[in-house]
Amino acid sequence: MEIVIPIFPNLTALDAVGPYEVLSRLPHATVRFLAAEPGPQATENGMLSLVAEGRLADHPHPDIVLMPGGFGTRALMEDEATLGWLREAHAASDWTTSVCTGALVLAAAGILDGIPATTHWLLRDRLHELGAVPVEERVVRHGKIITAAGVSAGIDMALTLAAEIAGESYAEAIQLGIEYDPDPPFPGGSTRSSRPEIIDLVRRRASELA
Amino acid sequence: MEIVIPIFPNLTALDAVGPYEVLSRLPHATVRFLAAEPGPQATENGMLSLVAEGRLADHPHPDIVLMPGGFGTRALMEDEATLGWLREAHAASDWTTSVCTGALVLAAAGILDGIPATTHWLLRDRLHELGAVPVEERVVRHGKIITAAGVSAGIDMALTLAAEIAGESYAEAIQLGIEYDPDPPFPGGSTRSSRPEIIDLVRRRASELA
Repeated sequence: MEIVIPIFPNLTALDAVGPYEVLSRLPHATVRFLAAEPGPQATENGMLSLVAEGRLADHPHPDIVLMPGGFGTRALMEDEATLGWLREAHAASDWTTSVCTGALVLAAAGILDGIPATTHWLLRDRLHELGAVPVEERVVRHGKIITAAGVSAGIDMALTLAAEIAGESYAEAIQLGIEYDPDPPFPGGSTRSSRPEIIDLVRRRASELA
Repeated sequence: MEIVIPIFPNLTALDAVGPYEVLSRLPHATVRFLAAEPGPQATENGMLSLVAEGRLADHPHPDIVLMPGGFGTRALMEDEATLGWLREAHAASDWTTSVCTGALVLAAAGILDGIPATTHWLLRDRLHELGAVPVEERVVRHGKIITAAGVSAGIDMALTLAAEIAGESYAEAIQLGIEYDPDPPFPGGSTRSSRPEIIDLVRRRASELA
C-alpha cells in the first residue's frame, strides 16, 4: 500500500507528520514524502525542513493521497503540475485525503466540486469559493474523500482512515502505540470550544500575517 | 528564545514535530533542530527524514531543551557527546523537557535522578531502572523539568509549557491556531482507557520489534 504525502515549500509540518505517524504503522504501508523535485522542503517559518525522497511525477498512482496544508498552498493552487498530478492520482486512488488548507489544493484541482469537506476554520469561506461545501466538523468523509480541519485534526482523520483500512482494533492499537489519549491543558481548540476573545486574537494575528 | 530539539537517526518524528508546531508560535521563539552533525536524520521506519540545520555542539546553552524519543534513543543513551551536551544545556536552561523515550536519554544523562517523570507507557520500568520516579500521567512537571508520555503527548506538554512562558490566553490562541480540539474516533490511547486486548496486542508487537 503506497501512501503519498506531497510536500512543498512553506508547508505546515504537523499536517503531514501527524497522519504519517499513524498511517506508517498500517500493515504493508509505505509512506512516501514527495515533491516536484526531491530534497528538503522548508516549513512556513523556515525552522524545519522535511525531505522529499523523490518526485511526484514518478509516483502517479498511489493507493492513498494525503495533501497537507500551510501557507505554501497558495502557490500550489496555481501550479498546474501539482494540480494535474492530484487529478490523475485521485482518479485511481483508493482514498484521497487532506489536512488543513490541503483541502484548498484538492478544491483547486476540481476534486471537491459540490463535495462536503472541511479545512482550517479560518479558510472555510475560501473552500466554498472554490466549489466545495464547507462542513464545520473535524473530519469529513464523502465516499473515498476524507478531509480534516486544521493542523492537528490530521491525527484524528488518519485514525479514522486506519480503521477503514485495517479494522477498528488495529487502529486502536496504533492509537495506543502513539499514546493518543489527548488531554489539552485548557478547553478550546475550535471555534465552538474557544473563548470569543481567543478567536478574535487568532483572527487578528492571521490578518496581520496575510 | 532559543529552543533546541536534538534529532538523531531512528527518531519518532511526531515526538519532535508536535511540540515544534506549538513552540515555534511563541513570541520571539526560534526552534532549532540540531544533531551531532548537520543533515537529514531518518525516522525509525526510514520513511521520513527531518533536517538538522546545525551541530548541537555549536548551541550549548538553549533556553529550552526538548528531547524527543524513538528507537534511536537506545544508541543515544550510550553516546557521551549527547549526554554531555544535555548535562551542560540542562545546567543553564530555563526548561528541560522530553517526549516519549526522550525521557530515557535525560535519565541516562543523570538529569532525572530521583525526579518524578513520565515516558512511553511501555518503557516506564526502564525509566525507573535509570533512576527516575515514573508517574502514570500524560505530562509531568517537576520544577523546570517537564516530561511527556508517548509520541502524541508532546503536543499537550508543549501547550502546558507555552502557557508557562507566554500566559494561558496566548497558549489558547496557539491551540486554536493549530485547531487542537482533539476528537479521536474511538476511546483508548492510554493503558487506562484502552481495552485489555488492545494493550496485549501492542505489548506483543513491541516484543517482536525488540
